[in-house]
Amino acid sequence: MSQPVRFALLGTGRIGQVHAASIHRSEDAVLTVAADAVVAGAERTVARYGGRATADPFAAIAADDVDAVVIASPTPTHVDLLSAALDAGKAVLCEKPIDLDITRVDAVRERARAAQQPVVLGFNRRFDPHFAELRRRVRAGEIGRLEHLAITSRDPEPPPAEYVAVSGGIFRDMTIHDFDTARSFVPEIVAVTAVGLRQFSEPIAAAGDFDAAVVTLVGSAGESVTITNSRHSAYGYDQRIEAFGPGGSLEVGNVTPTLVRASTGERSSTGEPYRRFFLERYREAYELELAAFVAAVRGEDTSANPSPGFEDGRAALLLADAADLSAREGRTVPVDLS
Amino acid sequence: MSQPVRFALLGTGRIGQVHAASIHRSEDAVLTVAADAVVAGAERTVARYGGRATADPFAAIAADDVDAVVIASPTPTHVDLLSAALDAGKAVLCEKPIDLDITRVDAVRERARAAQQPVVLGFNRRFDPHFAELRRRVRAGEIGRLEHLAITSRDPEPPPAEYVAVSGGIFRDMTIHDFDTARSFVPEIVAVTAVGLRQFSEPIAAAGDFDAAVVTLVGSAGESVTITNSRHSAYGYDQRIEAFGPGGSLEVGNVTPTLVRASTGERSSTGEPYRRFFLERYREAYELELAAFVAAVRGEDTSANPSPGFEDGRAALLLADAADLSAREGRTVPVDLS
Amino acid sequence: MSQPVRFALLGTGRIGQVHAASIHRSEDAVLTVAADAVVAGAERTVARYGGRATADPFAAIAADDVDAVVIASPTPTHVDLLSAALDAGKAVLCEKPIDLDITRVDAVRERARAAQQPVVLGFNRRFDPHFAELRRRVRAGEIGRLEHLAITSRDPEPPPAEYVAVSGGIFRDMTIHDFDTARSFVPEIVAVTAVGLRQFSEPIAAAGDFDAAVVTLVGSAGESVTITNSRHSAYGYDQRIEAFGPGGSLEVGNVTPTLVRASTGERSSTGEPYRRFFLERYREAYELELAAFVAAVRGEDTSANPSPGFEDGRAALLLADAADLSAREGRTVPVDLS
Amino acid sequence: MSQPVRFALLGTGRIGQVHAASIHRSEDAVLTVAADAVVAGAERTVARYGGRATADPFAAIAADDVDAVVIASPTPTHVDLLSAALDAGKAVLCEKPIDLDITRVDAVRERARAAQQPVVLGFNRRFDPHFAELRRRVRAGEIGRLEHLAITSRDPEPPPAEYVAVSGGIFRDMTIHDFDTARSFVPEIVAVTAVGLRQFSEPIAAAGDFDAAVVTLVGSAGESVTITNSRHSAYGYDQRIEAFGPGGSLEVGNVTPTLVRASTGERSSTGEPYRRFFLERYREAYELELAAFVAAVRGEDTSANPSPGFEDGRAALLLADAADLSAREGRTVPVDLS
Repeated sequence: MSQPVRFALLGTGRIGQVHAASIHRSEDAVLTVAADAVVAGAERTVARYGGRATADPFAAIAADDVDAVVIASPTPTHVDLLSAALDAGKAVLCEKPIDLDITRVDAVRERARAAQQPVVLGFNRRFDPHFAELRRRVRAGEIGRLEHLAITSRDPEPPPAEYVAVSGGIFRDMTIHDFDTARSFVPEIVAVTAVGLRQFSEPIAAAGDFDAAVVTLVGSAGESVTITNSRHSAYGYDQRIEAFGPGGSLEVGNVTPTLVRASTGERSSTGEPYRRFFLERYREAYELELAAFVAAVRGEDTSANPSPGFEDGRAALLLADAADLSAREGRTVPVDLS
Repeated sequence: MSQPVRFALLGTGRIGQVHAASIHRSEDAVLTVAADAVVAGAERTVARYGGRATADPFAAIAADDVDAVVIASPTPTHVDLLSAALDAGKAVLCEKPIDLDITRVDAVRERARAAQQPVVLGFNRRFDPHFAELRRRVRAGEIGRLEHLAITSRDPEPPPAEYVAVSGGIFRDMTIHDFDTARSFVPEIVAVTAVGLRQFSEPIAAAGDFDAAVVTLVGSAGESVTITNSRHSAYGYDQRIEAFGPGGSLEVGNVTPTLVRASTGERSSTGEPYRRFFLERYREAYELELAAFVAAVRGEDTSANPSPGFEDGRAALLLADAADLSAREGRTVPVDLS
Repeated sequence: MSQPVRFALLGTGRIGQVHAASIHRSEDAVLTVAADAVVAGAERTVARYGGRATADPFAAIAADDVDAVVIASPTPTHVDLLSAALDAGKAVLCEKPIDLDITRVDAVRERARAAQQPVVLGFNRRFDPHFAELRRRVRAGEIGRLEHLAITSRDPEPPPAEYVAVSGGIFRDMTIHDFDTARSFVPEIVAVTAVGLRQFSEPIAAAGDFDAAVVTLVGSAGESVTITNSRHSAYGYDQRIEAFGPGGSLEVGNVTPTLVRASTGERSSTGEPYRRFFLERYREAYELELAAFVAAVRGEDTSANPSPGFEDGRAALLLADAADLSAREGRTVPVDLS
Repeated sequence: MSQPVRFALLGTGRIGQVHAASIHRSEDAVLTVAADAVVAGAERTVARYGGRATADPFAAIAADDVDAVVIASPTPTHVDLLSAALDAGKAVLCEKPIDLDITRVDAVRERARAAQQPVVLGFNRRFDPHFAELRRRVRAGEIGRLEHLAITSRDPEPPPAEYVAVSGGIFRDMTIHDFDTARSFVPEIVAVTAVGLRQFSEPIAAAGDFDAAVVTLVGSAGESVTITNSRHSAYGYDQRIEAFGPGGSLEVGNVTPTLVRASTGERSSTGEPYRRFFLERYREAYELELAAFVAAVRGEDTSANPSPGFEDGRAALLLADAADLSAREGRTVPVDLS
């Protein structure tokens, strides 16, 4: 067996912990260094999972005993850290978004393209076993040519007002995941029509943002994709996909913790509440995402379910920008993702 | 078109009303006379659906303008009325059971066998569209040779104590329907193993009866049938069938009034309460039962889904007797239904 | 009991037969006259259901023994027949659409408003028991204020090319039903954003029409409604509704003929194909639609589930016009339905 | 943190590999030694998961660096190895059954009772998250006092004839798991009524064994439990539980790999085939079983979901013996599990 991939983890907050655990569980990965501006967080992480702690992410990237970098720090730091990792020739798994500003994204685009090592964007939903199996069956031709894709995506509750203010708006912060899901089925999107809504949140409206949205994408072969978003959902994280073609449909509904169902005098065949939010819903996806990254770094063939890359991160941001423009101007916006 | 079948309805209580409405809705049937010892009930019925009222069921049977008789009067009257109808050469649809005493049943058996007109037993569940379709697919060989049939049958709540006292016991009163359902799949039952239970009802225990039961039947080709009964069910009438063979399984679950499903913070994908009891659950079945009887009286071909006859009513009672014996003696009881 | 409502049926084609059967099954309605330009069709209808036949619909409307008129003739005749019925002071149940041209609709608008008798539009889906129960629960506040309504509506297969040519286009011919469904939840629509698609049908594209569409409506209180249409659907008639609010969601999926489910080595828990098309799917709805109309004609209180009226027919056409404009110009179109 | 529990794994076949992987994934366990009569199997195991290999299980048990023993060797060796582990004062996780002969089981009973270390039986289904959650809700009183438990348990296909010959018969080999599941809800069983069936397998019949069975258990409080077994199932491993009480029911159906559902022209809402057999179906359960054992060895509180112990293994065998007697003699057999 080859050597395990040696990781630097940049950022040890909530999502950083998810990646640290995935590295730990992998037989082919090891945590070498954890970096966090709040060095106590890095220290707690390495106490649990091994490796050394530092406050300096650039030192972590540059270290000789680091093969791969996971960027799980705040969004504004992504481009600089990614840039450093590219310069150092390290493999990178970067949390989304690359940045909220397309000009900053484009500034590193050529270097990302030229990279010899995998540059992977953290669109974890691509690795959800349910969605991945649906996509596999669509690609296998089970329903014929894909005509329509319906993505439903609702968060359980809105983020805090202070986060909303710096989030880049619903399309760049929330819908961006759905844009990537859309592109994992229909890579070439040519038009975006978005309707932004203010249905329940005064703080979000006060920030000039939308708390719900409906987006219609059109692909280069005439495919349609609808994305239905809301910033709240009483029944938990609402994450569903339905694909439709001339041969029929394939769908994935929401996930419950177990399959227990109850019937009483008031109701029949009642399921448990859906998994609450992304850490629960996409638990398996995060681990599979890291495993696929490790496999790519080790040079294994991952063509059956390739990881999303830099261009996917850029395309999702372009779609978010187009959706924002469409919603604000009330018109369909053509896009060119090439 | 031929003339409509002219009906005498004997008994205008709850189940009599169901049959009166079915006669009314049929394009091929007409109510000529309704008989009830409480003549006011008969009068209310004919005011709504037409025909004349009488207190004398034998006169109704004998009337020249009566082709067919529906016996919906109390169980102890069934054999005498059936006997009169057989003597008069009229077609008969008799509510189950024929009688609680097999010797009284056997006393009319030969005349029933010799009848030129249809003699049909009111095992309405045979006409339930869901169960009938499941049976059709089993017979079409979809799962191969039937190996196991699981019948779940629970009433929403126990009958009143005074009814329990004269009911003949759970096997003759309640399970008898399930025995007929079993025989609609596996006509030749050769052994009965029953476990009687006293789980919740003191009045039923005081009457020496069981409030729940588990029965295992074995067919002549080695098929097994389980019947699970209870005299109460918080979530409504529990009526399910599952058939199993070497090719797979077919099943019918409980029925809700509509398909509306709800998801909230406490639960997901919640259905409506199941249909409450037999009048709601088997509404379509009663109408189809009468339609099949009318078709038989008119000489149409009903071989695809034949109505249960006298022998079916007798066989169900024999199985009930055997189950009662099995439960009381703690042993498997062989039966011969021929 | 009061006298049954006496009906003139105008048009005895497929949908006319549905109404004739509903009149026959109602205890409170009777068919007096059937009119069809092809008089043989009218004659066959009255041979089965009673009444007299005529080729002259205006004579039928004017007849003294006619209380109510069902307009089930081709669309171009609707306005003239409706107009005559209004002039004659008869109650009217008019199949949708009133007309494909809003100016012709508006020409009778004032007289329809002033009518003393019920003027009902044949939006049968309002009476579907599943959708009606969902709407009842939304109105009862079960999910709080309605925020989003998702309507999925796909026909099993496209109409013939000759029909497409005179259909008025997908929005006026097909989506018009969904516009009315949307308005039964959100009456005041203020904006329409439509995307028209050409995904599979060359004849439809050749006619300048769309074979699929996605429409987003916005209500005056900020509610959003999505309508997803296709002119084909391999798995049968696709008719679903999902309602979403701060308290959760309510949904109705597709309907199968029975509840039989199968499991084999290749697949688990497989349902029957969905009901094929509107006559099967909305069978109960047509009968309930007529019953509600009869109740209204008899002056009964129908406020719990009122029939859609002339204004609803007009509003649906206005939304269709707006959708067509939106799809063709790639912009959101504001509407005023008042 | 305390030291990890050091394991000796006895038997490195299929089920031994499952336990080796669980030990590896646990943060609190380490594999010290693997023993197998075929020493190459032990060597392959330690090459993957660490530790040393031996052909001598007794040496492995006795080793100073071993805290806990997993007995995953062939059934006839269980009692001797268990006995040695008890003598050595080691914690034991023993695969079921303890033995097929109750006298050999009883020979070690007193020593097992007196053990200071956990003695756990490998009834993995107790740790299935679905079944465990159902049991938790039953115990929480959600449906009131448990009245009926229905266990459906079918293997995908029968074992080889040579295995059948030494299996101890369907009740001791297959139903024994279901007896333990029954007892995890109703510990005190007082009567067993079993019907053995020969439905499809000539080799099994030739061995004097049954290929299907229906068992009814009665608990000391009048609870009923049905177990439906078959040695084949076209649609995969059939593992379901339904619990019924005065307040309603709770149920767990079969598990599919993902939630993808398909609809086509032939069928609607079709799920994937169920998980094939026990390694797939109970994957999580095996890991949780080992984790609970580790927690018990480390002295943590496991009272919320205690592991099954020696007495549970003995009780399941007593029930299997009683079922075999009941099926062969056609009578209910009383049992005393104390």
